[in-house]
Amino acid sequence: MSDRSFDPDTVSLDEIRQLFKDLPGPDLEAATEVARRESQLTKPRGALGRLEELTSWLATWQGRHPPRVDHPRTAVFAANHGIAARGVSAYPPEVTAQMVKNFVEGGAAVNQLCKTFDADLRVYEMDLEQPTADFTQGPAMTDAECARAMAYGMMAVEPDLDVLCLGEMGIGNTTSAAALACALFGGDPAEWVGRGTGVTGTALRTKSQVVADGVARHKAVGDPFALLAALGGLELAAIAGAVMAARLARTPVVLDGFACTVAAAVLWKADTTALDHCIVAHKSVEPGHARVLQAIDKEPLFDFGMRLGEGSGATLALGILKAAAACHTGMATFSDAAVSGPA
Amino acid sequence: MSDRSFDPDTVSLDEIRQLFKDLPGPDLEAATEVARRESQLTKPRGALGRLEELTSWLATWQGRHPPRVDHPRTAVFAANHGIAARGVSAYPPEVTAQMVKNFVEGGAAVNQLCKTFDADLRVYEMDLEQPTADFTQGPAMTDAECARAMAYGMMAVEPDLDVLCLGEMGIGNTTSAAALACALFGGDPAEWVGRGTGVTGTALRTKSQVVADGVARHKAVGDPFALLAALGGLELAAIAGAVMAARLARTPVVLDGFACTVAAAVLWKADTTALDHCIVAHKSVEPGHARVLQAIDKEPLFDFGMRLGEGSGATLALGILKAAAACHTGMATFSDAAVSGPA
Repeated sequence: MSDRSFDPDTVSLDEIRQLFKDLPGPDLEAATEVARRESQLTKPRGALGRLEELTSWLATWQGRHPPRVDHPRTAVFAANHGIAARGVSAYPPEVTAQMVKNFVEGGAAVNQLCKTFDADLRVYEMDLEQPTADFTQGPAMTDAECARAMAYGMMAVEPDLDVLCLGEMGIGNTTSAAALACALFGGDPAEWVGRGTGVTGTALRTKSQVVADGVARHKAVGDPFALLAALGGLELAAIAGAVMAARLARTPVVLDGFACTVAAAVLWKADTTALDHCIVAHKSVEPGHARVLQAIDKEPLFDFGMRLGEGSGATLALGILKAAAACHTGMATFSDAAVSGPA
Repeated sequence: MSDRSFDPDTVSLDEIRQLFKDLPGPDLEAATEVARRESQLTKPRGALGRLEELTSWLATWQGRHPPRVDHPRTAVFAANHGIAARGVSAYPPEVTAQMVKNFVEGGAAVNQLCKTFDADLRVYEMDLEQPTADFTQGPAMTDAECARAMAYGMMAVEPDLDVLCLGEMGIGNTTSAAALACALFGGDPAEWVGRGTGVTGTALRTKSQVVADGVARHKAVGDPFALLAALGGLELAAIAGAVMAARLARTPVVLDGFACTVAAAVLWKADTTALDHCIVAHKSVEPGHARVLQAIDKEPLFDFGMRLGEGSGATLALGILKAAAACHTGMATFSDAAVSGPA
């Protein structure tokens, strides 16, 4: 994102809203090129199923044919949440910083996944010493803090990225995501709450209560960006910013699990076409994920019962995207290979 | 498979049945080692879901810890079917040989998938000029032909393969697979019949009739290996042989779509533990696939609406297996990384 015209240190939510109004649409010429070539490849029409849809989606949002998945990036945003002090997680808040160190040292799951699929991993540490405020007491972030976090997220998008996978790390962030999702899409707060890293019993009841209190306090806010500030977190705002910046830079996006998808869903709530350049890699075990996927009408690629976050599901999807692009680009046509068509 | 004691040119089905009685069981020590390490890795327990199950399965059937997916192979068996002359396919029978040439020249989907995941591709052309007999008139193969094809399939397994992906190419083989599946597992013949490469209307009705006629003629045979001879094809017999040889060589197997899974299901029918070293990569569009998966109690990894065969789905699964093994092997433990455990 070299063409944004605001200063990330002083940007306002209104400037972000303004930028959001100018998101580019699909490249239908690239999609037409995909369809033309696909029909000539040595296979029955449609026989590669969703791989063919992925190829078309990649070309449409990269704005070129053939699409490429040679230079993917996984961006993981890490932040801390005031709400974590309420005992909503199975792990203490210092785990966020410890896991960031683990990412930097190459020891986390996402490191191994990035190696497996040749993705460039970037980890963005967002003021870990400065958690957001407890959203049951007031907004988690001021509008200015939220806007700055979104602008920070935009920096994950650089020219020449083929695909951007997004992920998060933040002890307490499924609580924040549950509250944000409930405020965006309605329903009973408890239905958006899951076990996160593994809470049970009293902690799980506390988590539900905290979500209900946060939603009750802020839901009248209404505006999706303002709700992101009120109930979200720095990493969630950064993800929303990265999704916007990727659209502007013609970089298709792969979303990860519950917290990541809820962050992106803020944009969907503001404009239902805002996530057309995004796919969701997997269906998380976290029960709110299925709900938000239904709300934003996205069908995840796979369901492996994962619930790790940190961009692990999104990065795992890169193998499938690489395979889709390789088939489309590398296969022979019926005439190249002198293979007979249908009788 | 260097330790088989029979001559593949003169082997009998009884010799194969004898070999089948000595399939090795799981390596539970390797599974225990996986569980021990998995519990120490820097993630909430179970957070990688099915990836953790895959790691355990790989170690159990490779008989070692840690498991590796460095040297996978995709073996595609190609053969022709007498039944193709009855007009059961959308494509003429010469497409089998044309596609084999396409595999050899690198132009098919499976070539691109093998390149993407560094798999060694082997294509086995099985007497393409000599299709099996029309199974509505008599057995497709003699017992000796079937045994020889199984022994031929066993040659796809060599020492030092980490994983074997199996696939097939054979115009008419979904008809053969539907008849074989119906004879093995019962039900209405029409329920096992799908559109294959894309048949509709009269050809689809012909396909159903051919399957019904074949099942009626041979179902009294009863014995699974004899049914394979009566209704199967050379490539289906080779797949069954390869699955057996892989078990003997401690090589986990990834099965592909309908025809491939039915070929393996012959072994399951003879011994319900015979496919414990196999996973099924994907759920094919071919409606019989879901039925056979239910019969043999296998949950496919993904459903991308694919229906190409040629080992494409199985090879696509290699990315997921590589990712699973990489996470298990490469991740830091809580103590390595000084990350706090649950509070």
